[in-house]
Amino acid sequence: MILTQTELIERCRRAQQLVQGNGIDAILVFSTESEPAGVRYFSDYWPSFETAGVLISKENAPALIIGPESRTYAASRSKIAEIIQMMDFRESSQPDYPGSKLPSWRDIFSRYGIQKIGITGFHMFPHTMMQNIIGIPGVPVSNADGLLRQLMQKKSPAEIDCLRRAAKISELGFKAILEAIRPGMTEVELCGIATAAMLANGAEAAGYPIWCCSGPNSNQAISRPTLRKVRQSEIIHFSIGAKVEGYSASIGRPVVLGPCPEAIRKFMQVGLDASDMTFDLMRAGAPAAEVACKIHNFVIERGYGHTLLYGPAHGCGQMECEYPFLETSSTYRLEAGMTFMADMFMAEKNMGFRWEDGLVVRAKGPAEELSNFGRKINIL
Amino acid sequence: MILTQTELIERCRRAQQLVQGNGIDAILVFSTESEPAGVRYFSDYWPSFETAGVLISKENAPALIIGPESRTYAASRSKIAEIIQMMDFRESSQPDYPGSKLPSWRDIFSRYGIQKIGITGFHMFPHTMMQNIIGIPGVPVSNADGLLRQLMQKKSPAEIDCLRRAAKISELGFKAILEAIRPGMTEVELCGIATAAMLANGAEAAGYPIWCCSGPNSNQAISRPTLRKVRQSEIIHFSIGAKVEGYSASIGRPVVLGPCPEAIRKFMQVGLDASDMTFDLMRAGAPAAEVACKIHNFVIERGYGHTLLYGPAHGCGQMECEYPFLETSSTYRLEAGMTFMADMFMAEKNMGFRWEDGLVVRAKGPAEELSNFGRKINIL
Repeated sequence: MILTQTELIERCRRAQQLVQGNGIDAILVFSTESEPAGVRYFSDYWPSFETAGVLISKENAPALIIGPESRTYAASRSKIAEIIQMMDFRESSQPDYPGSKLPSWRDIFSRYGIQKIGITGFHMFPHTMMQNIIGIPGVPVSNADGLLRQLMQKKSPAEIDCLRRAAKISELGFKAILEAIRPGMTEVELCGIATAAMLANGAEAAGYPIWCCSGPNSNQAISRPTLRKVRQSEIIHFSIGAKVEGYSASIGRPVVLGPCPEAIRKFMQVGLDASDMTFDLMRAGAPAAEVACKIHNFVIERGYGHTLLYGPAHGCGQMECEYPFLETSSTYRLEAGMTFMADMFMAEKNMGFRWEDGLVVRAKGPAEELSNFGRKINIL
Repeated sequence: MILTQTELIERCRRAQQLVQGNGIDAILVFSTESEPAGVRYFSDYWPSFETAGVLISKENAPALIIGPESRTYAASRSKIAEIIQMMDFRESSQPDYPGSKLPSWRDIFSRYGIQKIGITGFHMFPHTMMQNIIGIPGVPVSNADGLLRQLMQKKSPAEIDCLRRAAKISELGFKAILEAIRPGMTEVELCGIATAAMLANGAEAAGYPIWCCSGPNSNQAISRPTLRKVRQSEIIHFSIGAKVEGYSASIGRPVVLGPCPEAIRKFMQVGLDASDMTFDLMRAGAPAAEVACKIHNFVIERGYGHTLLYGPAHGCGQMECEYPFLETSSTYRLEAGMTFMADMFMAEKNMGFRWEDGLVVRAKGPAEELSNFGRKINIL
C-alpha cells in the first residue's frame, strides 16, 4: 500500500477543520458505484451496487454510511471505524429487507448534533435523500463541493505516487493491445486484453469504463467499446486506464493497422504535436487560459480548429476527470503539485482520437510525464 | 443483434400509452453510468461519465437527452432519432464548456407541452436536476418507477434470449478461471481472466463490477476484488457475469483449492442443495413468499439459519438485480416469463459464498436454468 492510515486520518482531520471554519456542523460526502471518489478519499471504501457517504462532523470521529448489504465488505475496506447502515443507501432496485431496523437521518443528526450540513457530490445527490434530510425542521443544507475541492485539488506525494503507478500499469494495458491486435478482433475483445493485463500487473480495477472506438466510431469524445471488428487503414482509438488505491490513470492512443492514409497520419500528427506542447507549457505560475489558448491556436493555425470540442487538459486524481479544467476561459494559474491529464481530443466527421497522458506540474521546468509509452504515431 | 429496432419502438409506444392512461404529459427516464437500465431499455444508448434521460411524452416522438460530450457516441447507439443535449446531464466534475448554449428544462417542457411529469430512476434522480424542474411554476412531478415496472417486469422472447446468451458467456468466464486458477494469483487477476474471456466471446461488457472474494473476504455479500492472493483450503468466491445487448447475467460459485476442510465442504453443500431447490420451486402460480419460506426453512433446519441475509432470488434483466425480490414477505405469485436470479447468499464469521444462476419461470414444470456450468462442489 502506498497510502497510509495516517494520511487518511489527516484528510478527515483537515475536513473537520473546514467544517469548524465554515459555520456548518458537518459535511456529508456522497458517492456511488461509478462516482466513488469522495467516500474513497476519506475512508478507502468504494461502493458497488449500493451508494455510500462519509459524515464528518464538528466534534465527533467520522462515520462511514452504507446500505443494508455492504457491512462485511465495508468493514474489510474502511479506514473509518464507525460504520452506520441506512436504508437510503440501498441499491437502485430498492429491496425491502423485511425486518430490517436501520436509523433515520433524524436519529443520526441528533446523535452527531447536526443543525447545519454541507453536502458534497451535490449534483448527483438524490432528490429523495435530500427530501428526507430537509424534512427535519431547521436543518439548512448547502453545497460543500467547493470546500472539498480545497482539500482534493493539490495532491500529496503519496497520491502522486498512486497516479504514477496507475499510469505505468496503464502502459502495460496498451502494450498488451499492441502485441495482440489484428484485423478482425472486436473493440470489446481488445479492451478485455488490456483489462486482463492491467489486473495481472497490480491494478485494482480499470480506472473508468475503458474503450476502443474504431473507424467511424473513432469520432466519439466519450465512448464504450462495441462488437465492431477493427480493420486496416482506419483509426482504432484506445482510452485505457488502471486504478491504483483509488487513483485513476488514462492513456489515449490512436493506432492504425497499415497502410495508413495520409489524411489520417497528418491529423494524428497535429494532435500529437499539440499534446507534446502541453507538457512543455504546463509550468507553475502559467495562467491556465494562456496555456489553453496557445495549444488551441496551434491546432487552429494547422487548419484543425473545427475538430476541437474542449480544452487541452483537465484535473485528475481519484476520478479520471476532476476539477479544474484547462480552458481558454480559465481564471487560475498553474501550481506545483497539481495533476492533470493532457487530453487532446480531436474529431471530425468520420475520424477522431484523444492523445492523453497524465502530468504533474513541477516547481520548475516542464511538467513530469506520468506515461509516454506508445505516445507516437502507431502505424502497425 | 437479438433485439430489433421494432422491439425498441414498441417499448416506447407502450410507455406512451402509460403516459396517456395515467394523467401525466410525459415520463422522464433517468439513468447513469452504473445504473443504465432505463435509458438503455428505450434507446439502446448507454451513458458513460455523463448521465442520460429518455423523454416519452403524450403526443411527440421520444427524445434521448444527453450531456455536452456524448453527441457522436449517442448518435451511433441510439435507436431514438431525436437527441437533445443539456448541461444538467454533464459529468460529475461539472466542466464549464465555455460558449456552449444548451436548452433549459423550461425550453423542453414548452416544446413538448409538458405540465405534469413522472420520473423513473426516482431514487437516484439528482436533487439539483429536480430543483431545476420544479422551479418551473405549475409542473407537478411524480415517481413513475411503478409505471415502468409494468413494462419491464415480464420479458419478451428476445429479452430472454439476451439473458440466455449472457448466461452462456458468463459460464465461459468461469471456465477460464477454473483453467487458470493457482494459489498465489490475486483476486483481481482472476477477475481479469474472466473479463477477457467474456469479452473475447461476445459480451459487450461485464454485467456489473464482477468480483472474487477469498478467504476472510468471502463473507462479503457485495464485494470488489482485492490484490489478496488466493490460497489452498479456503473459499474463493466468484461472482462473474456478462452483459449482452444491455442484459446482465451472473453466476456465483465458491471454489476451493484442495484440500477442503469438512466445515467448508458441508457449508457449500447446504447452499447448493438450497439453490437446487429454487429451480424446482419457481413454478408459475406459486406464491413467491411460499417459495422463499421453503428454501429458508431448509437452510434453517440444516442449522445454517444465521447465515442468511435476504431472500433466495431476485428479478433480473438489464440490471443484474431488479425488482421483484423473492422474500418471505413477498405478496405476489410467480408468472410464466418472469426472470430471476436464484441467489443463495450465505455467510458466517469468516466464510461465505453465493450460489447464483439465472432462471425463467415456465408455464409448466420447474424453471429453465439459464446457466449451470460448474454448479457443483468445485474442489480443485
